[in-house]
This record gives sequence, structure tokens and C-alpha cells, in this order.
Amino acid sequence: MGKNIIVSKVDSIPVNEREVELVERKGHGHPDYMADSIAEAVSRELSRYYREEFGEILHHNVDKVLVVGGQVSRGFGGGVMIQPIYILVAGRATVEVEREDGSKVKIPIGPIILRAARNWLRNTFREEYFNVDEHVIIDYRIGQGSADLRRLVENRVKYPPANDTSVGVGFAPLSETERIVREVEEELYRQRMKIPAIGEDIKVMGLRVKDNIRLTVATAIMAQEVSCVEEYQDVKEKIREIALGVARKYTERNIEVLVNTADNYEAGAGGVYLVITGTSAEHGDDGATGRGNRINGLITPFRPMSLEAAAGKNPVSHVGKIYNIVAQKAADRIAQLPGVVEVYVELLSKIGYPINEPQIASVNMIVEDDERFGAIRKEAEAIVAEELDRIDELKHEFIGDNPPPVC
Amino acid sequence: MGKNIIVSKVDSIPVNEREVELVERKGHGHPDYMADSIAEAVSRELSRYYREEFGEILHHNVDKVLVVGGQVSRGFGGGVMIQPIYILVAGRATVEVEREDGSKVKIPIGPIILRAARNWLRNTFREEYFNVDEHVIIDYRIGQGSADLRRLVENRVKYPPANDTSVGVGFAPLSETERIVREVEEELYRQRMKIPAIGEDIKVMGLRVKDNIRLTVATAIMAQEVSCVEEYQDVKEKIREIALGVARKYTERNIEVLVNTADNYEAGAGGVYLVITGTSAEHGDDGATGRGNRINGLITPFRPMSLEAAAGKNPVSHVGKIYNIVAQKAADRIAQLPGVVEVYVELLSKIGYPINEPQIASVNMIVEDDERFGAIRKEAEAIVAEELDRIDELKHEFIGDNPPPVC
Amino acid sequence: MGKNIIVSKVDSIPVNEREVELVERKGHGHPDYMADSIAEAVSRELSRYYREEFGEILHHNVDKVLVVGGQVSRGFGGGVMIQPIYILVAGRATVEVEREDGSKVKIPIGPIILRAARNWLRNTFREEYFNVDEHVIIDYRIGQGSADLRRLVENRVKYPPANDTSVGVGFAPLSETERIVREVEEELYRQRMKIPAIGEDIKVMGLRVKDNIRLTVATAIMAQEVSCVEEYQDVKEKIREIALGVARKYTERNIEVLVNTADNYEAGAGGVYLVITGTSAEHGDDGATGRGNRINGLITPFRPMSLEAAAGKNPVSHVGKIYNIVAQKAADRIAQLPGVVEVYVELLSKIGYPINEPQIASVNMIVEDDERFGAIRKEAEAIVAEELDRIDELKHEFIGDNPPPVC
Amino acid sequence: MGKNIIVSKVDSIPVNEREVELVERKGHGHPDYMADSIAEAVSRELSRYYREEFGEILHHNVDKVLVVGGQVSRGFGGGVMIQPIYILVAGRATVEVEREDGSKVKIPIGPIILRAARNWLRNTFREEYFNVDEHVIIDYRIGQGSADLRRLVENRVKYPPANDTSVGVGFAPLSETERIVREVEEELYRQRMKIPAIGEDIKVMGLRVKDNIRLTVATAIMAQEVSCVEEYQDVKEKIREIALGVARKYTERNIEVLVNTADNYEAGAGGVYLVITGTSAEHGDDGATGRGNRINGLITPFRPMSLEAAAGKNPVSHVGKIYNIVAQKAADRIAQLPGVVEVYVELLSKIGYPINEPQIASVNMIVEDDERFGAIRKEAEAIVAEELDRIDELKHEFIGDNPPPVC
Repeated sequence: MGKNIIVSKVDSIPVNEREVELVERKGHGHPDYMADSIAEAVSRELSRYYREEFGEILHHNVDKVLVVGGQVSRGFGGGVMIQPIYILVAGRATVEVEREDGSKVKIPIGPIILRAARNWLRNTFREEYFNVDEHVIIDYRIGQGSADLRRLVENRVKYPPANDTSVGVGFAPLSETERIVREVEEELYRQRMKIPAIGEDIKVMGLRVKDNIRLTVATAIMAQEVSCVEEYQDVKEKIREIALGVARKYTERNIEVLVNTADNYEAGAGGVYLVITGTSAEHGDDGATGRGNRINGLITPFRPMSLEAAAGKNPVSHVGKIYNIVAQKAADRIAQLPGVVEVYVELLSKIGYPINEPQIASVNMIVEDDERFGAIRKEAEAIVAEELDRIDELKHEFIGDNPPPVC
Repeated sequence: MGKNIIVSKVDSIPVNEREVELVERKGHGHPDYMADSIAEAVSRELSRYYREEFGEILHHNVDKVLVVGGQVSRGFGGGVMIQPIYILVAGRATVEVEREDGSKVKIPIGPIILRAARNWLRNTFREEYFNVDEHVIIDYRIGQGSADLRRLVENRVKYPPANDTSVGVGFAPLSETERIVREVEEELYRQRMKIPAIGEDIKVMGLRVKDNIRLTVATAIMAQEVSCVEEYQDVKEKIREIALGVARKYTERNIEVLVNTADNYEAGAGGVYLVITGTSAEHGDDGATGRGNRINGLITPFRPMSLEAAAGKNPVSHVGKIYNIVAQKAADRIAQLPGVVEVYVELLSKIGYPINEPQIASVNMIVEDDERFGAIRKEAEAIVAEELDRIDELKHEFIGDNPPPVC
Repeated sequence: MGKNIIVSKVDSIPVNEREVELVERKGHGHPDYMADSIAEAVSRELSRYYREEFGEILHHNVDKVLVVGGQVSRGFGGGVMIQPIYILVAGRATVEVEREDGSKVKIPIGPIILRAARNWLRNTFREEYFNVDEHVIIDYRIGQGSADLRRLVENRVKYPPANDTSVGVGFAPLSETERIVREVEEELYRQRMKIPAIGEDIKVMGLRVKDNIRLTVATAIMAQEVSCVEEYQDVKEKIREIALGVARKYTERNIEVLVNTADNYEAGAGGVYLVITGTSAEHGDDGATGRGNRINGLITPFRPMSLEAAAGKNPVSHVGKIYNIVAQKAADRIAQLPGVVEVYVELLSKIGYPINEPQIASVNMIVEDDERFGAIRKEAEAIVAEELDRIDELKHEFIGDNPPPVC
Repeated sequence: MGKNIIVSKVDSIPVNEREVELVERKGHGHPDYMADSIAEAVSRELSRYYREEFGEILHHNVDKVLVVGGQVSRGFGGGVMIQPIYILVAGRATVEVEREDGSKVKIPIGPIILRAARNWLRNTFREEYFNVDEHVIIDYRIGQGSADLRRLVENRVKYPPANDTSVGVGFAPLSETERIVREVEEELYRQRMKIPAIGEDIKVMGLRVKDNIRLTVATAIMAQEVSCVEEYQDVKEKIREIALGVARKYTERNIEVLVNTADNYEAGAGGVYLVITGTSAEHGDDGATGRGNRINGLITPFRPMSLEAAAGKNPVSHVGKIYNIVAQKAADRIAQLPGVVEVYVELLSKIGYPINEPQIASVNMIVEDDERFGAIRKEAEAIVAEELDRIDELKHEFIGDNPPPVC
């Protein structure tokens, strides 16, 4: 069927130069980020197990994790958890495998899920605040499938058929504002090791109107580390400075940073944003896979976006995951071509057809110089084709030490 | 603070005329649609209860519903459900209210949730196939809040503060392809009353490349109504014809309709798309609120979109819901102005500030004639301002007989 | 191995003539009775399904049902449910069967459980009070087993091996007090159709000291049917009279009836025993299979009792169920023999051995006349042997229209 | 109302000398024992928390724990868990307390439950086999109550009113067979530290017919520690010898020990009793509070028994717990009186009346010499009265380092 690549030139203004720009990032401790990351952690752990035991990553899809907020009682100085966070991992997985000798093997699906989820929580939050034994209940509801290795091996193809008709989107480069929003969250998350009062749940919203960038930062503050409003305000001021410092590195535009703007100091501890575990999921905020950042770590409502959750899907045949990664990789490379100002790559799979043969691979780009478009077009087409054909290697990256990000 | 409305003219090509266009609709019986609709049904039922009892829609947010796929055994002619669909309604609600006389009232939150969910299922699926008593387990995990009516009344304002920093997006008009995709699903859903073999779970993907529109329709076929491959194929052919008929009404472009393209007839009943209840959720397909259609009933990856789930949020202060509706209403009206070819309305709330005063209300439009833009701009600005100020009436629409759609 | 029947004569005083006697019955709407009955209803429905489809009652054990109390808000005149009762059906069942032709069939285990539980609730409570759609959440966690019909048929024996080492106990006749306690509950339960204020949750405790019998009756009163303390007291008085009337039929001893003795009228509606559904499970009272009546419908702490839950176990090989029934049937028949004053039958199974061959079948009896014991002994032995050999017919009784009681 | 103590002499034969005797013990790793112990661990942890924070043990009842069996795949040499054990803690607890100064405090109920359950599992099983992180899911459903400390303190009485009409039973001394059954389990449980192949799940059934005692011991064998049938048989032989050795200490009667009698060696690993965690709950065996041993650590179907679960109930007002302990303590002391051969103490509470004033306290005893009964009766009465009056100290014992056993 071929790759159906169409490369077009568009005449619109690059995002970085438009009048208004809007971008959001939900940070590591945000309930939606948690749901995405746990989905992906489970998929990775499962994939590794399958490959180790059977030489193949078997079918699974755990892209429906729900994080149900708990309940805490807290004030300046600390607090206690009343009702733990409840995490439900839902989806499907291969739980029984028939080996080539006819013997049947069961997959330790439950322990894999619990281990993956707990490990992710342990690695993301600080154990002195988030007690994985007591602050969370992890349960799962997984549809059970089986696999026949002989048939799998017989039918093995380099490019398995797409499992669905679905869309992947990538673009490059990031605008200044986008970069800033992402880096501010990353930096604040790192800084929590030095400034313990900074919680893991950080949300950054960036609004640029012409040359004025306003960052609205919502950061959960550790109740244990602030004993009064004044200390709380000090932490906010530090956060503001860090954010400002990061932003300055990327832009010369005017920067305004607002931190926890909903605070109402008159209401005391109840009026400010305090947490005891690091995440707002501790007190009623819920999260769900697919509701947070796209694979570039951002939510960009004015840019093309795929609604597909990449997290938790299997990296072999799930186009909802793979096409987003491929589109982003292709966009990143095309953006490097001389003369390309901005590029969008959009892929649509054809269910049942080889995964490297999309219904359409649409590339839209803004170029500096129309005359050079002919040459660029060829290169872009080659890049997209190449990235599509690399899909069979991609699955290994997901299991490796440095996997592609999914949120 | 004002309304911060910025109206801009953009020079890009309207979607309808671009080279490539892509649009998707998940139909009534799709697991994500189910999750959205149940979330909204619960919110509506709750809102009605609150208003009737207390004169106010009290705080709630039930925008995290998870539909966990069940398991069936089916073949041509019918089948049985093995494991019911499991639906978990998560979120927060006001469960205790202190009246002005100091008495405390408890809200029947559990029965409200169960009733709303069951009623939605009963109204959407056909009872001869989907048995609400036996085919589904409905549970909930709701964070419990309380309200003090006296304080509520004292603090009552026409425009309550936004509960979050979040984005709403609307655009108009729909392109031909978008309209077709939406109408094809709606028509097929209606036709299931005449052609019982058509299941409720219908997904339509529309790809337009220049003047060629390809509709990929995935329709669950009722196992009870087809006794062999031939009958199954007949139903597919009918679906194709219906889809084609609908499409013809909206376009003169070339239309290709593909139905259930992943079918593998050699694999018998296991190779085709059969269901016994009407939804693929019966066998392993999961759904989650916020993962399906936007409020215009479509997923349009190449158009601006908000990732916020409108469904399940309260219609009083939840900008994630309200701003999407307001943006769409404004876009619809602006698109009617003479000379407007295409318009995008994007709203960003400011947490803690009156909900009718956004951080930014950005309107981008393509106009026929640049010279008329000055006049249009004024009217557009007025429309946006008006729709923002109408927010205090909007909440009643959600509870009314003809509520704004949320998915 | 034989039947190891030992018949002994004991010289103790019959219960009816002892100084102190104590007996309890938990009525139809008591949470423990609910848990037992739902377990048994599920087992019956499953057994029927298995027999109809496969000609055999396949392995299952659903004797772990938990009824988790809900929450209501009620007062004189009525109320609302806040949080529904949650019922979890746990256990094991055969969910996949391989037929003799090698084809595999899945069992609709989920719908069977939901149907059996809902039907039991509908038949036991009155629909105007207990809304099965809104007042209860039914979930299940069932370990999944499989069966191979060919092997089953090959290995079919008249008396399958006992599945466990466990004890069954029966005795006869009931004492006056025991009879009264059972009949009082039954009569009150029936009378609720005439006196709507009587709820289904009735607990009767009988204490006899010499010739004085005191009945302590706890009856849930329907809040909807009593509008004030006086009406509540009237209902209590009616209950007292009914209980007294029943008791008079069975004894000439002195009778005292106490109804809802914990009532504190000064505390208003909060101090009395009001319900809106009929069961105390609506507000925090939990129930579990095996915690209520023994198979004779009573709890008799001073009589031999088996702790085994009969409810929910399969009637083919589960000695915990079968031996209790067999012991009771044998005791009932032996008690009819002339000269027998009181008899206890106690059976201990031998795991892995034919179910009609216990480790021990111990019969203890009080006889009128020691000289006739020799003759009675033989008859008693024959009765026990006969009832053990009837086990292969017993399983059909459980599925029939008039099954042996299990609680 | 007084204590209503009735002391009677009975002429029956002591259990130790009857023809047939039957007794059972479910050991530490048995699912029912787990459910009892976790219920009690939660109650103890809660009680401690309440007392430490508020000076009072507040209302709670967590006597409904369900242990739902998981699924493993194992053979000689080891195995893996597929589906973890699921533990649901149900009941009621005080979750909100109003202090004397009017401030409200929330109780960290969730963390307390999770901690108590996990700690009990860690202390009972060996961590190299039972991984508390991966082999178990712990959830809870607790009805939420509140307390007003001021009112509590005002109404504080030495003997709170009984919460229910319920029965407590105790007897002493244990017979030889009873002692042996209990000690055999205890010794095998201890020996697992030396003989790692012995699992925690040990059930002992003792049947005595005249002078022949047959012990049927079911012991879960650790799959990791036996690599073939022969090793498995060796372990069984060791268990037999240990049991025999223990029994010899307590009796001169004939002893027969049967270990894992249901084993079918021809069926290989599937035919023997192997586990990987130590408990049969790992593979389908469920447990529930109140279904296991009585507070003397035994199930004695031919002795008076209370069906009340002591485990999980609060030690302040829950007669279902307290009366069983009191009756046992009194029986133990009365049995020490010279001339007492066997004694049974049976208590019936009167709901709403001071907990030290039962409806009836019935003491039945077999004495050596009828003439001395008059003197013994007085002493027995005094002992029962004393133990009833000691109830106000008893609650502290439950929280102490050496609490009364409940299963």
C-alpha cells in the first residue's frame, strides 16, 4: 500500500510569532501525570517480562489507570492522611502463554502491576512524605487474554498490522514559551531535593500575548516544611525566582510569574495549597491516563494534538502509542533541516495493515524560503519513511534504560 | 480585570480547503462515549437534586468515570456475557449541607449515581440486548465535601470565581468532512431501530485528501441478528449505503466508505466484529471520561482542541466545562457574521477571578475581505463578552431538557 | 472403609428440662441471613445452570459473601439512603468447561451471580422500600476453575470423595424455646405484609430459666410507616402481642416479651430502631456468610453446632454443607423412634474418601427406657447409613423447588 | 439489675471420658485465621490510637474481614503468584472526633488499617516467601461515625451499656485431645523456622474414639523447598514425627497421625499440597472473620460455643467479644477449684444495660463429690462476679503487649 506521504508547505505564522500562545504542563506529582506514568510503568514491566520469558512483547493495553483522590487533614506544620489514594489499573494483558512445546505458562500479572506502580511511586515521591505502604491502595481489573507462541512465531512479521484506526501527531520546534513551561516544571521538580517545601505536584500554565509571557505556577507546598503563612510565602517567592531564572534563559520577552494565585491567606491553612504527600491526589483530586501531557510533555491546545493516550499501550502494534512517537521523531529531525521554520507531522493508521504503511502521513511545514521547498520536501519524505520503517526497533527503546517519554 | 478579548485575523487556509483533513467520532455505544455520558448524567442528576433541595447547584466534579471492559462468549446467532462491564464513578461531591437554620441534610449520593448511570444505559442501549441488571456492575468512589448554605447565600455572586486555570476552545463552521462524520454516526445510531443488527458502538474516521473523502466506519454488529458471514456482510453493505447516502447530502467530493476493515472472514465469528450488548465494552474495551469526543461531538487533531473533559464537571464554577461551551457558542455566532470564513475562540480562565473575566479571550478568524475585518472585530468582541456574561444562565441549561452536548 | 457409626446412650438431662436454655434466631432481613441466603441463591442458580447445560453440577464454592452496611438518613416518616449496601460475592466456580467433543464453553458467571443476588433481594424485601436498582451495589471476586467433561464422566462415581475434613451436626427434637424463637421470627416476617411497619430485619433471642421464658425481640421498624414515637410504640406493642400469641401455642411456661429494649425515646428518632429499606444493613451493620443461623434456623450455643457455613457450598462434594443436612435429617428421623427423648448426630468426613463413608458417625441419644436402647440403636444405625447413602439424591433437592434450608 | 448468676451441677460425663470426641484447629496461615487476626490487629491499632489521642477507646467494629483467595502457578521447586490475595476490611469506626474545645479531629483510619494488616502479615509469614508489597491487595470499606468527647466524658461510666444481646461461652479444662490439637499446630508453626518446607497454613483435626486419637494434619508445604515427590514425602514424615512427639507429652492413649491425606502422588505437583507464600489463600481458598477458631484457639463442635466473632470488635462495649473472654477467664479459674472436674460458663448480655450485669450468667459444672458442691458454688459465683466487674480493666489488656487471644 505504500506510505502515502504528503508533504505540504503552509503559509501561516509560526506559533512563536503569533499574537497569543497558550501552553500547559502537568508536573510529576499531578494526578493525571501519575495515571499516565503508572500506566506506562506497568506496560514497560510487562513488556520486559514478556520479552525475557518468551522473546516477544505480547499483547497488552493498560492505558486506563484511574487515580482516585484520598482525604487528608493538614495544617501548617503537617497533617495526616485519612483515606489513602486509590489507584485502579484497568486494561488487558496476555496472562496465559502456550509455549512451542505445548506447555502453558501463567503470567504473574498481579505482582507485575503492583511492583511497577509501587516502584514508580517510590521513585517519584520522597519516602519521608509519601508512604507507599500506607498512603495508597493499588488494585487492578485486567481483561485476560492468551497467546500461542507457535502461531506467534509462524506469523511473525517485521511490521505487524495496526490494531486500530488512529492518529499520531508531532511538531517541532518548541516555541520559547513551550520550552519555558516545560523547563520550569522540570527545574522546580529537581529543586524539591534542595528546597523540601516544594511538593511534586506542579502545574505550569504559560500565556504569551505578544511579548509578554505570564507563567501561572501552581505548586503543592509540603505542610511539614512550613509552619506559618510567612514561611509559606517565602517558599512561593523562591519558586517565583526559580521560575523566573529558568525563563530568562530562553527568552528576552517580558516575564511575569504568578504562584498559587488562588491562595486566600485570611482563611489560614485552609486557604493555601498545602499537601503532606506531595500530590493533590491526597485530597480529592483525581487523575486518569490520557488526560495529561502529550508525549512532548506539554498540552498545547492551539497546536495539532492527538487525543490518544500513549501511556500504557503496547509498543508493538498499538498505533495510538507508536504513531505519536514516530511523528514526533520525524518532526524533530525535519525541523533540523536548513530552512525549516516549523513542521507538523500527522499520521493516520489503517487498521489491519502493516504498521509502517499509514493511510496518510501528512507533513505540513513553514519554510523560510519557498524556493528551497522542493529539496526539503524530498528529505522530509525520506525522514518520515525512515522513521516508519524503524518501528520494529522502537519497541526495544520502550523497554530500555532511556525510553521515549509518554507524558 | 475585564475580559481581555483579543480578536485577530489570520491568513491561513480554511480547513475545508486544506489538502489533508482528518476527523473522528466515537459513537453512543463507544466505551469512551459511555464514560463521558455517564459522568454527565450523574452531574445533571446531582445538579437537579441540589437545585431542587437547596436552590443552588452545589459543588461537585464527577469527571472521572472508568468503564472497564467485561468478557463475553459469542458467535453468529448470539452469545452470553461471562463477566459484566464494571463502571467506576469517581470524583467529588457535596454530601452534607447545613441549612440556614443550622440543620444538617445528607445527600443521597449513592442512589443518585446508580440511578443516573442506569437510566443513561437504559436510554442508550436496547433492553433486549443490554440487560442493566445483569450486564453491568456500577460502583463509585466519591470524595465527600460539605456546604454551609448560609455562607453560600451570603457570598453568592453572579459570577463565581474560576476553580482552575484552564482552557476552553471552540470553532465554527464545521467542514464538510466533519459534518459528514458526525451525521453518519448519528444516522447509523438512529437506523439501529430499523436494522437491529446495527450495534450502538459506532466509530467513524474521516480522512480527506484533496477531493477524496474516505470514511472508515467501525460498527459493532449484533450477534443475535446475524446467523452467518453472509448476513454479516449484508449488514455491512447496508451500513455502507447509509453512510454513503448521508455523505452525499453534504458534499460533492468523492466518497469512499470502508466498513469494519479489520474483518477476517476466514477466522469465522472470531474474525468479525460481533457483540451481544451493543458495545465493545462487553469484551475488554475500556473507556474513560475525557478520552472521547470534544463538545462538538468530534475529535479533530488538526484543529485547536481543549483536553479538558467537559463531562461530569459542575456547570457553576468549573471552567474546564463552561469555557468550552462558551467558546463554542461564541464561535457559532461569530461564524454567522457576514464575511467570516472560519473562526476559533480560545478562552483561558484565571483561577480565583470571576468566571466571566478570563485571562485571555483570543479570537482568530479567516475573513473573506480584509477591509471588513474592522467591523467584524467589534461584533465578535461583543459576542464573546455577551457569552461570557451569560454564564450565569448557562448552568440552568445543563439541567434543562435540552442541555448543551458534552461529547 | 465403612460408615464407622457409633451409637451411644447418654444420661444427661434433655435441653428442654435443663435449668437454663438459650437460643437465637437472626431473621430474613438480618445482614448475616442476607449473606447466607445470597451465597446459597448463587450456588443454586449456578448448580441449575451447570446441570442444565452439562448434566452435572460442577465444582463451585461461593460461601464467602460479605454484606457491607450502607448509610441512611432517616427519621419518623421516612428518609433517604446516602450510601448503598455493598455486597461482595467471593469464592470459586467452574467458569470454563471442555465438552466431550473438545469444544470449550464459558459460563456466564457474572450474570448468574447478579441475577441470583438481585432476585433473592427482590423476593425477600418489599420493593416499595428496598430498591434493588439504587440501594445496593453487587460485586464479585470469583476464583476461576475449569472442568473437562470427558474426564468428569469417566471418573463419575456415585459417591464422590469428600473435599475436606469437616464436621456436620444435627439434633432433634427442638425444645419448646427453640421452636418458639423460630416461629416468632417467621410469624413476624409474614405479618409485615399486614402490618407494613414491621421491617424484615428481626432478631429473636430466647432465654429460659426454669419455667420462665424471656424473648428479646429486635425488630427494625419502617420509618415510612411511623410518624411519631407513639406510633412506633404501637407497633412494638403489636409485635409483642404477636410474639406472645405464637409462644402460647408451644408452651405453658411463663412468657415475657421484650421488644427493641435499647430504645431511648428521649433521643427522638435517633434513639429508636428505624429503617427505610427493612434491614439494618442499610446503616452500618455488616453481614457475612456463616455467621448466622445453623441449618435448623437457629443458633444454639449450648448444643453441639458445626461452624461450617452450609450456604454457598456445592451440594455434590462439599461435606461442610452435605454432612450438616444429612446429620439433621438422620436426627429428625431417629427422634421419631419410640422411646427416643433427644438425639445428636455428628459426622466427620475423611478427605479424599467416598462421601458416604465418614471417619466417624457418632449418635448420642437420651432414651426413656434403657432396656429398649438395644433395639433403638440398630434402627438409628440403619437410619444414619441410609441417609449417608442418599447423598447422591440430595444434590437434586438443593436445586429443586423445595430445597433444604441452609440458614 | 444484678448479675443473675446461676450455678448448677450437671451429671454428664466429662468430654475427656466420652466415647467420641472431635476438635479442630485452624493454624496461623489458614485464611480464616488470617481474617480473624487482621480484624483484631486493626482493632488493636485503632484502640491504641484512640486512647493515645483522646484518652478513650472510641467506638469501632471491624469484625468483617474477607480474605479472597488469589491464584498461583507452582510446582516442585517453586512458582509464581498470578493474582494476589485480596483482603477487604469492613466495619465501622469513629473517624471524626470533636474535642472538648470544640475542635474537630480526623482519624487516619486508612493508614491505620493498612499498617495493622501489613504488619500482621509481615510478622506471621516469612518475607522470603510472602511479599507484602506484591502478593496482597488490601482495601477497606468502613462506615464512618463521629464522637463528641465532651459528651463522652460527661457520660463516662465504669460499665458502659452492652451494645447487643449476645452470648459468651467458656469452658475448662481442655481435654487431652484438645490440648494436643492446639499444641501440635503451635509446634509445627514454630518448627517452620527450622524446617523451611513447613508452610504457615496448618489445620489439625483430632478425632478420639475411646482410647484412640487420630490427628489429621493438613500442612501447606513450601514449593520452593521441595524439588520432588520424595522430598515432599520426607517433609510429611517429619511433620508426622513432630506431631507424634507433641501428642506423646499429653497422653498415653494410642496416637495415629495422618498428614495431607488427600495427596495423590500420581498427579505430580498438581496432586500434592504445595504453596509458595505459606497460605492456601494464595490459590482460591477464602477466609472470613468469625469462621475460624473460638477464643480458646479451637473449634469444638460438641462443646458449647459462641458463634460471635471476638476478633475485630471493640473491647469496651462489644459483648460479642468481651463476654467470651470473661466467660473463659472465669471458667479457667473455676476449673482450678478443688473438686471441679469440668466447668462451662455462659453469659447472655442485656442490650442497653451495664455490661457487668448480664441477663444470665449460667455456670454448669461436673464435680467430683456432690457434697462439696455447696462450697464450690459460692466460690464460682464470686469468681464470675469478679470477672464481670473486671471488664473495665480488660480493655487495656487488649491493647497491651500480651493481649487475650481471639482466635
